[in-house]
Amino acid sequence: MKKIYANDLKKHFGEEIEFSGFVDNIRNLQWVQFIIVRDSTGKVQVTIEKSDEKNKKMVDLINDLTLESTVKIKGIIMENPKVKMGNMEIIPTEIEVTSRSENELPFNYKNLDGVNLDTRLDFRFIDLRSDKNILMFQVQSALVKYMREYLYNNSFVEIHTPKFIGTASESGAEVFEVKYFDRKAYLAQSPQFYKQMCIASGFSKVFEVAPCFRAENSNTSRHATEFTSFDVEFSYIDSYEDVMNLEAEMLKYALEKVKAEYGDKISEVFGVNIEVPVLPFPVMKLSDIYKELEERYSYVVDESEKTDLTTEAERLVYRLAKEKFNHEFMFVIDYPADKRAFYHMRDSDGSLLGYDLIWKGVEITSGAQREHRYEKIVENAKNKGLAEDVKFYLEFFKYGCPPHGGFAIGIDRLTMLLLDISSIKETQLLFRGPTRLEP
Amino acid sequence: MKKIYANDLKKHFGEEIEFSGFVDNIRNLQWVQFIIVRDSTGKVQVTIEKSDEKNKKMVDLINDLTLESTVKIKGIIMENPKVKMGNMEIIPTEIEVTSRSENELPFNYKNLDGVNLDTRLDFRFIDLRSDKNILMFQVQSALVKYMREYLYNNSFVEIHTPKFIGTASESGAEVFEVKYFDRKAYLAQSPQFYKQMCIASGFSKVFEVAPCFRAENSNTSRHATEFTSFDVEFSYIDSYEDVMNLEAEMLKYALEKVKAEYGDKISEVFGVNIEVPVLPFPVMKLSDIYKELEERYSYVVDESEKTDLTTEAERLVYRLAKEKFNHEFMFVIDYPADKRAFYHMRDSDGSLLGYDLIWKGVEITSGAQREHRYEKIVENAKNKGLAEDVKFYLEFFKYGCPPHGGFAIGIDRLTMLLLDISSIKETQLLFRGPTRLEP
Repeated sequence: MKKIYANDLKKHFGEEIEFSGFVDNIRNLQWVQFIIVRDSTGKVQVTIEKSDEKNKKMVDLINDLTLESTVKIKGIIMENPKVKMGNMEIIPTEIEVTSRSENELPFNYKNLDGVNLDTRLDFRFIDLRSDKNILMFQVQSALVKYMREYLYNNSFVEIHTPKFIGTASESGAEVFEVKYFDRKAYLAQSPQFYKQMCIASGFSKVFEVAPCFRAENSNTSRHATEFTSFDVEFSYIDSYEDVMNLEAEMLKYALEKVKAEYGDKISEVFGVNIEVPVLPFPVMKLSDIYKELEERYSYVVDESEKTDLTTEAERLVYRLAKEKFNHEFMFVIDYPADKRAFYHMRDSDGSLLGYDLIWKGVEITSGAQREHRYEKIVENAKNKGLAEDVKFYLEFFKYGCPPHGGFAIGIDRLTMLLLDISSIKETQLLFRGPTRLEP
Repeated sequence: MKKIYANDLKKHFGEEIEFSGFVDNIRNLQWVQFIIVRDSTGKVQVTIEKSDEKNKKMVDLINDLTLESTVKIKGIIMENPKVKMGNMEIIPTEIEVTSRSENELPFNYKNLDGVNLDTRLDFRFIDLRSDKNILMFQVQSALVKYMREYLYNNSFVEIHTPKFIGTASESGAEVFEVKYFDRKAYLAQSPQFYKQMCIASGFSKVFEVAPCFRAENSNTSRHATEFTSFDVEFSYIDSYEDVMNLEAEMLKYALEKVKAEYGDKISEVFGVNIEVPVLPFPVMKLSDIYKELEERYSYVVDESEKTDLTTEAERLVYRLAKEKFNHEFMFVIDYPADKRAFYHMRDSDGSLLGYDLIWKGVEITSGAQREHRYEKIVENAKNKGLAEDVKFYLEFFKYGCPPHGGFAIGIDRLTMLLLDISSIKETQLLFRGPTRLEP
């Protein structure tokens, strides 16, 4: 007997099939029992006529059945226009309870009104049962799949760099310390150094999808101590514009494919219409953006804040991108070099050869051409007071290294923006923050 | 001008192209200069006639050029049967040195005779430059790509589970401790608990490719403190045979694709012929294996050792699989349950519903049907004295959970076996062991 998933049942009308899932609902009427069973692809009604003598065993079983138990059903899948749910029903010949839910749910995951987010995260394994969450992670998986697919099609190689590192390097975000036998190790904040190492070793195009660890004691809707980063690095570029172009093409490719596969479901469940971006993405200089934000929206900030986009400016960039370019994305360039990582390349006049990408008002990526010339990268590291900390990294550039660049995207944040979800806490499978290590 | 990679040059004979790479060799003769330039896809000869007046600048540049520097070349790619390397050459019009290697290499990565493995690992960024290593990681990437592709084709969803966990759980291998703000966290040894959580949450088929961390102070050719695990878990199975079948199909699919894409190169560079396995893979009981190893190869071990395969027995299983089934793989079943993890399902008579998979004499995977029934899993945990440690995990099963199973494969180990490499230290991009955290 064929095991069929809910979304494939339609193809098997009239056939004997096997269907398994969670008991989503039970209606026990005078003459008939209905149970709704769901798997990760949908739901189906199972109909049992009580009067039929050969159903006796099943009727008893359902009298005793609890919601959220799991069942395996054998029967015939029938077309039935009278059944609202999918115009079909299973007429079972056999029902087996494969696991019994004996316990009352800590909350009703189908109606989260008034349910505290922390409670939901405490019982994330229940929270995830909602149609919304199941779909969210299907979409996230598809998004990453298609981003990878674009890179594979362009001869990129996937790498797996170590998360244990010997020195607490890279400035900015704090680093986690690990007890490593008789010494200390640290958790990589990003694969930056090692993806560049691959470039120096002659891998011309690499990417990695892996966890990054940041010991930042901050509690915002966008930050986590651990997140999944989609990192890209490739060589033989002429400028950071090559990096921007590749990123834009990759995002367009992936969003187009995600829309084709999940667009209808996403609009139904999340009320979001996926807009496939047009190439090229608009590009503006940081200073020009502040000028236009002031002119258009009277947004005024102190000069001292104009070295980066403020959170509010990021939000307004969405409006600007929409109104000026009819686009959801905006590349922002010409950041002051001194605020940026030492490994980003600077022009001869000291300006940064890198960018940020803003989507729907949130920064999703930083990208840049990297400094590949040994003397220059050593100088940059010294200027930041990092020469000792990153000594091992500087070695990579001593024996020839081609021009290269790259970027990184946090996939949890990307999912958050794609589906208009308010917090990364909901788009990580299991959120990790300063006060959250469970379950 | 088109940027062309070495393996595509043939398609552009007579065209003006741009080609970039590392200077692999220089021959400076009386009338002509040859440089060999390599990128990640191959090598090409660049020919400069010294007598040609307009070449003067290039001739000077090459007189001063060092090996392993990187160059960007513009010129015409010409077919030339006299050139041994690929029967082609680039006649350049412009050469730019994009980075200069000023330093003598710590060792000659093209000839590793007598080079200590630790030295190679100290300078892994040089070691990786060899044709062998570049190919190895292209193959590893392809292998993982096709394993994923098989799963995508079968409606699996890729997940990203946290590596930070709140309690030092799961028996066996030791756990790394992290300073996590005011408390301690631990690094996940595997995504086992969380991939099962997804099953309990109604994700019916999941996989993850991510680092695992094991604080084992052992120094073998097969172990590392960090490695990349390919983890699969799926529900609605009838028995662990469903798990074995899926794993065998996935491996066959991936090996077939890898062979089609890289088979010739692998046999040329590694001298290895990829054997695409036939389905189904042979299956034998542990006790029957020991019986046959004794009968066929006079391999005798004490009864006390027969609760698992010894390293030597694993090796002999390869011979047995070859001779008895003409196969490189062997599933081994019927392990004594008390030696196995508490989350593996046991039959009503106490025997284990799980397996190991041996490839070329090395265990590459453990798989099993999992215990999904709350009372039973609690009982199993108690019997192992783990009920407190894994309390958070046991919760997952309280509210209904379908029958499920899964397996895990270390991709570094898989690469090692695929290419007949003797140690995992060479198949990890950057090996991590008790005394190795650098570079």
